[in-house]
Amino acid sequence: MVRETGRSERHKRAGRDRSARAARAAAAPKAFKQPYNSYPFAEVLSADQVEDIHNASLTILARQGIRMLNAEARRVLKDAGCRVDEGTLTVFFDPDFVMEKVALAPSEFVIHGATAERDVRIGGRWLAPVPVGGPPNVSDFDEGRRPGNWRDCVGFIEMSQTADVIMINTPSVEPIDLPVATRHLDVTRAQLVLTEKPPFVYARGDEPLADGLEMTRIMRGLSQEAFEARPHIYTVVNTNSPLQIDNPMGQGIVDMARAGQVTIVTPFTLAGAMAPVTIAGALTLQNAEALAGIVLAQCAKPGAPVIYGGFTSNVDMKSGAPAFGTPEYAKAQIASGQLCRRYGMPFRSSNVNASNAVDAQAAWESMMSLWSTITGGVNWLQHGAGWLEGGLVASYEKFAMDIDLLKMMIAFLEPMKTDPDSLAVEAIAQVGPGGHFFGSPHTMERYAEAFHTPHLADWRNFESWREDGAQTATDRAYRRSKEIRAAYRAPEVDAARVEELDAFIDKRKEAGGATLM
Amino acid sequence: MVRETGRSERHKRAGRDRSARAARAAAAPKAFKQPYNSYPFAEVLSADQVEDIHNASLTILARQGIRMLNAEARRVLKDAGCRVDEGTLTVFFDPDFVMEKVALAPSEFVIHGATAERDVRIGGRWLAPVPVGGPPNVSDFDEGRRPGNWRDCVGFIEMSQTADVIMINTPSVEPIDLPVATRHLDVTRAQLVLTEKPPFVYARGDEPLADGLEMTRIMRGLSQEAFEARPHIYTVVNTNSPLQIDNPMGQGIVDMARAGQVTIVTPFTLAGAMAPVTIAGALTLQNAEALAGIVLAQCAKPGAPVIYGGFTSNVDMKSGAPAFGTPEYAKAQIASGQLCRRYGMPFRSSNVNASNAVDAQAAWESMMSLWSTITGGVNWLQHGAGWLEGGLVASYEKFAMDIDLLKMMIAFLEPMKTDPDSLAVEAIAQVGPGGHFFGSPHTMERYAEAFHTPHLADWRNFESWREDGAQTATDRAYRRSKEIRAAYRAPEVDAARVEELDAFIDKRKEAGGATLM
Repeated sequence: MVRETGRSERHKRAGRDRSARAARAAAAPKAFKQPYNSYPFAEVLSADQVEDIHNASLTILARQGIRMLNAEARRVLKDAGCRVDEGTLTVFFDPDFVMEKVALAPSEFVIHGATAERDVRIGGRWLAPVPVGGPPNVSDFDEGRRPGNWRDCVGFIEMSQTADVIMINTPSVEPIDLPVATRHLDVTRAQLVLTEKPPFVYARGDEPLADGLEMTRIMRGLSQEAFEARPHIYTVVNTNSPLQIDNPMGQGIVDMARAGQVTIVTPFTLAGAMAPVTIAGALTLQNAEALAGIVLAQCAKPGAPVIYGGFTSNVDMKSGAPAFGTPEYAKAQIASGQLCRRYGMPFRSSNVNASNAVDAQAAWESMMSLWSTITGGVNWLQHGAGWLEGGLVASYEKFAMDIDLLKMMIAFLEPMKTDPDSLAVEAIAQVGPGGHFFGSPHTMERYAEAFHTPHLADWRNFESWREDGAQTATDRAYRRSKEIRAAYRAPEVDAARVEELDAFIDKRKEAGGATLM
Repeated sequence: MVRETGRSERHKRAGRDRSARAARAAAAPKAFKQPYNSYPFAEVLSADQVEDIHNASLTILARQGIRMLNAEARRVLKDAGCRVDEGTLTVFFDPDFVMEKVALAPSEFVIHGATAERDVRIGGRWLAPVPVGGPPNVSDFDEGRRPGNWRDCVGFIEMSQTADVIMINTPSVEPIDLPVATRHLDVTRAQLVLTEKPPFVYARGDEPLADGLEMTRIMRGLSQEAFEARPHIYTVVNTNSPLQIDNPMGQGIVDMARAGQVTIVTPFTLAGAMAPVTIAGALTLQNAEALAGIVLAQCAKPGAPVIYGGFTSNVDMKSGAPAFGTPEYAKAQIASGQLCRRYGMPFRSSNVNASNAVDAQAAWESMMSLWSTITGGVNWLQHGAGWLEGGLVASYEKFAMDIDLLKMMIAFLEPMKTDPDSLAVEAIAQVGPGGHFFGSPHTMERYAEAFHTPHLADWRNFESWREDGAQTATDRAYRRSKEIRAAYRAPEVDAARVEELDAFIDKRKEAGGATLM
């Protein structure tokens, strides 16, 4: 009713030409504005407690060190002045040295997409949602749960291009039907050709990683020097908690830093399993491992873009299963944000849950994740859409649901205006006691853009909802996931670059692909 | 596995007598510790913006005033010095007068239950969850959706007694099968005899309200003077937005204040309907109306316990239907908390959603509500459990789900410890690189209490979950709601007081009950 009245009012005011112009403008896709968090960040630790965790981690790095399985990484750190025990493969980090190197990491940088509109600001108060990355399985309601495969890998990459709140790529499922040695070539190509958003490369050894960098350089049409001068691609390095960085991960940090590309160092510190059962202890371990990786990157190339990854959660003490979106996870993420700001580092966290279904549990655990990470100042929101089963499944329907949850959180971040028009003292005076604002000029001028409009919430009354089939939010997420999949449009790409890219891929495939570490 | 190992370790250490003592202690119900928010409160407004809304509301109160339909309320305000226009029933409030009166309201007080253990602290950093109040309908999965009735009114009152996170009573559904004139007698009796938690009384006129106060006085075994010296019962007053306080509501504020009992003044300011379409404008109206009610209470009795109610949300501009748990609602609640702290007033807000089903939408809208209100410093969390369909239904299954959501939020509020044992530097040293913490002494000593254990989350792996029937969180909420209903145990009550109470009720029923305003 309100909308109809509004339309008719507008039509009266505006001539036909003006309406036609407005219609064309509305049809053109609006550039997505990167979300920015201008609110005070959430805190669960006092400043003293942040120092407690900081100091405890530095003690661990100095006394106990990190087992660094990669020889190149040990060499880089030894050359920078670290004591290295080659017998136990352990690197010891002096506290002053750690802080000096961490200070070299940029607190804010831009990762570049195919066009300037796809550039993404990382760090500070900026937020960049990324899709779910890496589950071995995939599911939708049509075909059920199945192992990761090429068709679904492409399906998720296309959805990520379509969803405007998703700003960065990641292969959401592992295409295990493709040969291991050349899989990375196909996955990187899909990210570069089917989307305009910055791509991901796995740290699975120097060869596949170098392929990912070279392919991105080709598709961006850059010289080697120009490519390395700015971030275009990223990897995620998970430490082997506790206190260990394995061979491909160590190599990945070194190679990405040297190429001026982005590494996210994310310790996998599950309290009660690979980390102490206390959240403060798990955070201490997380912090020690993250700092070790960040220092390694800065030793490989001072100023290399790196991101501090927070992933600390807890296990279910009854089963040992990882739990996500718990109160402990929420506290650990907010605390991680505080640690990142202590170091002036960009902060990566995740939208996670441990539900087996796209149900209310999935929603409330995701909301625990989103509220804590976003109010806690997350910059890089990994697993932003589609994560299910504690990361064992990429779900099409959960992807659609998460897009709606992300949009709600982004609308929440939009600051409230308190100019005289927004305070509406005159509008209130005009309506007067016992009146209503439905048709008031103040409302009519603003109603179309006044509120966030969700895709998945159904706010109709019970009778209308029931007559229309009594669909749950899960039913609507299924329908919405189909719409998102159908809305995919391939971006315009430079044919010459694609030709060069495909020639590179052919050559590498003919050579047998890459050796994984 | 972990738990079993833990038990057997414990048994080895402890003798049989010690185990038996421990078992008895574990069987005794633990006193529920009232939640306390020690974190910095969330903010969406700058200090200047809080002043903008404050000043705009004071302008409205001074220039335009509030239409006060109740003659007694107008008399009280006129006697206190307000200008009153008896032709338009409008009371005008001078800004200095408003601030002087608001300063008289206690920023913190205790509302007393049947025993000292049921006393609830209101204000400051304390949180008190209250069940859903007042829907006309009720639903469960066994019998479906039906009009409010006496059996279900009692059912919800019993659940509220059972659920330890619920600290205060409210009749969750209206028993429309009871006669209007005596309904309040039965509802108040149920709250006083079936529970130990502080009761609610409707502001539906001086007679039924006086009955509620008298019945509470009788059941608490107090003299009139002792009863009025401390808060024992509360009412909720909704303004007739915009700018109007109706007859029973105005009378309720005056009567409750004079009896030293609690009034929550909650403007029903839906942006785009009864309030401006801008959130700042809706908050300005909310603030003006809330301050008017608070001032009235302080004029009726200086120091009377009152609570500032924030309920500002938005309507769906497509249908005009109220929406809840939206981004706009979240911002409005956090802003309301900031306004309350500006005045040193306790803050009431709500756990709301507009879903028609106990589904993912209900979960995410509730989480939007809970995160914003709780991090925003809510003291009195109305509709804490069971609200569905924008408040048109009290749902047994949503009640069970909300109890789990509330418990997660309360676990989140538990501050993180960073003492040396919690930082676990020694434990990390003992486990060493690549090890695990499952069986470490540091874990074994702490695992039983380390993490929050939810009732409704299912964290098993997909295969175990599927074999066990692939139940959704909604299915589990149904089962859990049955458990909560079955767990009700009537509290011990003083037989003599119940006898006196019933004699009073009989007398009032014989007299025909109360006249409603």
